[in-house]
Amino acid sequence: MTQPANHPIGIFDSGVGGLTVTRAVMERLPAERIVYFGDTARVPYGVKSPETVNRYAAEIVRFLLDKEVKLLIVACNTMAAVALPTITALSPVPVLEVIDAGARSALAATGTGRIGIIATPSTVQSGAYKAAIARRGGDASRTISRACPLFVPLAEEGFLDHPATRLIAREYLAPVLAENPDTLILGCTHYPLLRPLLQDEAGPSVTLVDSAAAVAADTQRILAEAGLLADADHLPHHDFYVTDAPDRLRGIGELFLGRPLPDVHLVSLGC
Amino acid sequence: MTQPANHPIGIFDSGVGGLTVTRAVMERLPAERIVYFGDTARVPYGVKSPETVNRYAAEIVRFLLDKEVKLLIVACNTMAAVALPTITALSPVPVLEVIDAGARSALAATGTGRIGIIATPSTVQSGAYKAAIARRGGDASRTISRACPLFVPLAEEGFLDHPATRLIAREYLAPVLAENPDTLILGCTHYPLLRPLLQDEAGPSVTLVDSAAAVAADTQRILAEAGLLADADHLPHHDFYVTDAPDRLRGIGELFLGRPLPDVHLVSLGC
Repeated sequence: MTQPANHPIGIFDSGVGGLTVTRAVMERLPAERIVYFGDTARVPYGVKSPETVNRYAAEIVRFLLDKEVKLLIVACNTMAAVALPTITALSPVPVLEVIDAGARSALAATGTGRIGIIATPSTVQSGAYKAAIARRGGDASRTISRACPLFVPLAEEGFLDHPATRLIAREYLAPVLAENPDTLILGCTHYPLLRPLLQDEAGPSVTLVDSAAAVAADTQRILAEAGLLADADHLPHHDFYVTDAPDRLRGIGELFLGRPLPDVHLVSLGC
Repeated sequence: MTQPANHPIGIFDSGVGGLTVTRAVMERLPAERIVYFGDTARVPYGVKSPETVNRYAAEIVRFLLDKEVKLLIVACNTMAAVALPTITALSPVPVLEVIDAGARSALAATGTGRIGIIATPSTVQSGAYKAAIARRGGDASRTISRACPLFVPLAEEGFLDHPATRLIAREYLAPVLAENPDTLILGCTHYPLLRPLLQDEAGPSVTLVDSAAAVAADTQRILAEAGLLADADHLPHHDFYVTDAPDRLRGIGELFLGRPLPDVHLVSLGC
């Protein structure tokens, strides 16, 4: 099943982080209509079991397919890491996700094969970036991973260039930088907000890779190949769905999306 | 309906924070059996709407009443702030909660009536501590509140005496301390872990009040009055229930409880 070209792209995350991916897609493909889903009643997924994450992911995918999306973007590292088979099995439309996009982008950027990976504890534990690097022909044994649990709350607090964030980043990055990577994957959709500070701490010899830009480029390529790019003169209307606290998305979302969120709808999933 | 004296005390929270309350109760009442419930699949509650929090609270209360608890302790500021009427309406046994206990303890401690309140954003927004202080005869207009959203993740990361935590605490506390309070309520069950650092930053002239100790004292008094204290030679067996990731509670729980958690069970609620 494919959908007509002016149907929307579905982008989903456990919360607000996927808005950095939405922003990258909007900037690259301004004519595309986007339906965003953030499961704000059940965020964060990173501390939940794989069974729970799979169940939640299936509910979200069904919701977005009902909106007749022509392509799905998994803008949540946790769902990409643990629920991708569930998602692709349910979806008749193409599925893109941040981990594979980030891994390919890092492999294109690295000269030495020493790739650092920073992410949430659950993403690091899943080994999903290492697996994606290996699947794409890289040497996973040369990667260096580090969980950075405080980066999400620091980004959500807006402490993007705060001395405390700098202290914490220095501590988190030290064991990674000690291995001399030439490339560093920002393996969480919140981290692009901290990019200037992280680049500063990593130094100019390290290339920072964020999956948002990579997945936006993939989206353009795949839609073009399928003849499914929206008409260039399409003036899209975007919709944002959350499972709780739409006002909070409207507020903090602007920080992540880089523009106001006009249409935020509250919906229920599951029970 | 009252339960026999050797029936358990039910303590519940959205996550692990209530374990600081559990610890205070265990230290004060070592013969009491405790059934703890942490809704780790749905934590945090602080960003959820009142409707959602009420629904979740009702599910937890029913679960604990099925365990034949003789008393309930709401060890979650969010549930105490927004769902107490729901909880007391459902419960035939006495209900204690952290906000009223903290407010009374602060009123007993203050000389000047200038009481500072630090808590999560949702607790501060609810105005629940101010309301409790007014209900207990204090002057709410003389209180100074401040939301401290990063303290929970910092405590969970174990950054209890970290320079970054100190920087953040200094920033959060500055507007509160500028009003010269003589008493500071730690209005979140995570904050007792940061107590030494916070006392340091607040200075020796400010009395720190945490609700855990206050609610443990209330528990002893109420059970004694009702003749429901467990036999002194009772060797209690405690049970811990979570809705997701029992291993995480076992790990981080030790930091909060001050001892290992042997019996952590996984259960489902709601759907």
